[in-house]
Amino acid sequence: MTHDARRYFDLPSPFPMKRGGELHGARVAYETWGELSKARDNAVLILTGLSPSAHAASNDIDPSQGWWEAMIGPGKAIDTSRWFVICVNSLGSDKGSTCPASIDPATGQPYRLSFPELALEDVANAAHAAISGLGIEQLACLIGCSMGGMSALAYMLLHPGSVRAHISVDTAPQAQPFAIAIRSLQREAIRLDPHWNNGQYDDQRYPDTGMSIARKLGVITYRSAMEWNGRFARIRLEAEQRDDNPFGFEFEVESYLQGHAQRFVRTFDPNSYLYLSRASDWFDIAEYGEGSIPEGLKRIQIERAMVIGVSTDILFPLEQQEQIAEGLKAAGAAVEFVALDSPQGHDAFLVDIENYSRAIGGFLTRL
Amino acid sequence: MTHDARRYFDLPSPFPMKRGGELHGARVAYETWGELSKARDNAVLILTGLSPSAHAASNDIDPSQGWWEAMIGPGKAIDTSRWFVICVNSLGSDKGSTCPASIDPATGQPYRLSFPELALEDVANAAHAAISGLGIEQLACLIGCSMGGMSALAYMLLHPGSVRAHISVDTAPQAQPFAIAIRSLQREAIRLDPHWNNGQYDDQRYPDTGMSIARKLGVITYRSAMEWNGRFARIRLEAEQRDDNPFGFEFEVESYLQGHAQRFVRTFDPNSYLYLSRASDWFDIAEYGEGSIPEGLKRIQIERAMVIGVSTDILFPLEQQEQIAEGLKAAGAAVEFVALDSPQGHDAFLVDIENYSRAIGGFLTRL
Repeated sequence: MTHDARRYFDLPSPFPMKRGGELHGARVAYETWGELSKARDNAVLILTGLSPSAHAASNDIDPSQGWWEAMIGPGKAIDTSRWFVICVNSLGSDKGSTCPASIDPATGQPYRLSFPELALEDVANAAHAAISGLGIEQLACLIGCSMGGMSALAYMLLHPGSVRAHISVDTAPQAQPFAIAIRSLQREAIRLDPHWNNGQYDDQRYPDTGMSIARKLGVITYRSAMEWNGRFARIRLEAEQRDDNPFGFEFEVESYLQGHAQRFVRTFDPNSYLYLSRASDWFDIAEYGEGSIPEGLKRIQIERAMVIGVSTDILFPLEQQEQIAEGLKAAGAAVEFVALDSPQGHDAFLVDIENYSRAIGGFLTRL
Repeated sequence: MTHDARRYFDLPSPFPMKRGGELHGARVAYETWGELSKARDNAVLILTGLSPSAHAASNDIDPSQGWWEAMIGPGKAIDTSRWFVICVNSLGSDKGSTCPASIDPATGQPYRLSFPELALEDVANAAHAAISGLGIEQLACLIGCSMGGMSALAYMLLHPGSVRAHISVDTAPQAQPFAIAIRSLQREAIRLDPHWNNGQYDDQRYPDTGMSIARKLGVITYRSAMEWNGRFARIRLEAEQRDDNPFGFEFEVESYLQGHAQRFVRTFDPNSYLYLSRASDWFDIAEYGEGSIPEGLKRIQIERAMVIGVSTDILFPLEQQEQIAEGLKAAGAAVEFVALDSPQGHDAFLVDIENYSRAIGGFLTRL
């Protein structure tokens, strides 16, 4: 059932890519909730982080829980009795959209590393094409979370007039060196796994080790030390949960990371991960402002925005949300800046539903 | 020349280990600066972080720069015209002390994973034995940096009356889950490298990849995002510094990490790294206080202490230094707590010489 709720939008062919090259016969997967109004003025688009699919919430066709289930639905913060909500799977992600694991129509073989270089601007352009294809000229609100927040900035900048209001969630106007270092190391763990084999892996020889290390490093940076002090402290695993390896897992926090890695390793295409990760490093709104973040943001013309960040986020620190808020304000938008103290770090938007519901729900209600 | 300055202290044989087993014919390497007074009351011992050797500073025999060169010498913060300074290489480290790469006299082969389980209490006991062997009953001051700060707490607790004053630098009373997660992932990167081969590597088949990832992850957590924003920003490598790999290094921060890794990978024995890393995770002063950190610290009887930490340290957060300061104070010591805002993170003690000199030099002058 899981995949049935997906719809697909065929991108214009050829679909030109920012850094050169083009895709032929490409598509993006998306899901929707609620009804588009006759005036087509109640559309809310969600752009996602690196790994989630378009299945942000359950719906009639796919009743399984979505990755933002608690936020989307009738009466919830993103109220589907008022809004027509769309979530588009990023171009380059393997959750239904064309990606390095897709068949290249020119060869009949998977693209793998022959997939053209991917930028978040391409993710934005593909999402914009899908929205236009649904007959929506202007979004009532564009919501971008984490990597999706960077894609959202690209979307608004590249498509003037396409967005009325914006909610920026735990994101950044450019990748900073700490985040680049983390992502570079994640990519290196995958690339140095002999089973990655320059992208030519298969189910028998698959870079499980590299993907596992990459995922664990991701989870470490998505959460916060403060949360873990309360949650795991120095709790040991039970004897029967431990193996004989002299350096095997002993603490609950190690087992927690292992669980995250095991759930992820075979469910995300490694090459697609590399492409999206690199795209995140490349993103820099200052490219559009002659090297200046405020000047880049000044080119974004919207009416209102809410910018949300968390003090415990080490991957996208709060100062970066403040830069976005200041920049959009200077560009003429009415901006609300929400600095939260949620202990969960970068992932707070997925966990601290109470505070994010209050902020996002309140903003949408006032639109 | 580099190794000539080392002296060696033969540990009592057998040397019992905290978690079971014993070492035969074991020794620790150490270096000294300055002169021991007739009353033997001017000794300052330095216990190190995970990777440094006993060569903390240059001396007549080895004029090469030491890892704390700017801090140790005549007229410097740790003034060798007044103090007799000793730095002991940790038991289990491959910089001259007996470690998993050493020959097991029982077999004539390297210990590798047959080395007994290592705890920081063993590191402390070995250092204490060396100090006693030098005829020093009581240290004027015990300085512990990073992992060495934890070893120092063990030293003072296990050897009552052996220390008058203590300087605690960027350390913790116990390993917290964030630090455990980082170190566990470093160990896993090494263990999952096929060349690690359950500890049976050699120069031809050596776990370079695992060690490189472990070191890079270390460096990421030893510094701070704030420092890197100023230092690297989004500066790109020159074209000639880049390779053809589609996911090769592009940003200066990536090249910086690569340089650190290359300098480390073949200069630290991987098995010794695993042992010392695990010992750091195990350390918990609360073990000596029926589960309570303050109760554990209360068993440490010293006259004075200075506890220094840095607000940008993500590996040993400032709150942990505050715990040490509060605990030693409750135990009856006169404690100075120094909270610095150095941007360099955990490594600040190696870099922000101005502030560390002022604090440490001031404290030692007042003794």
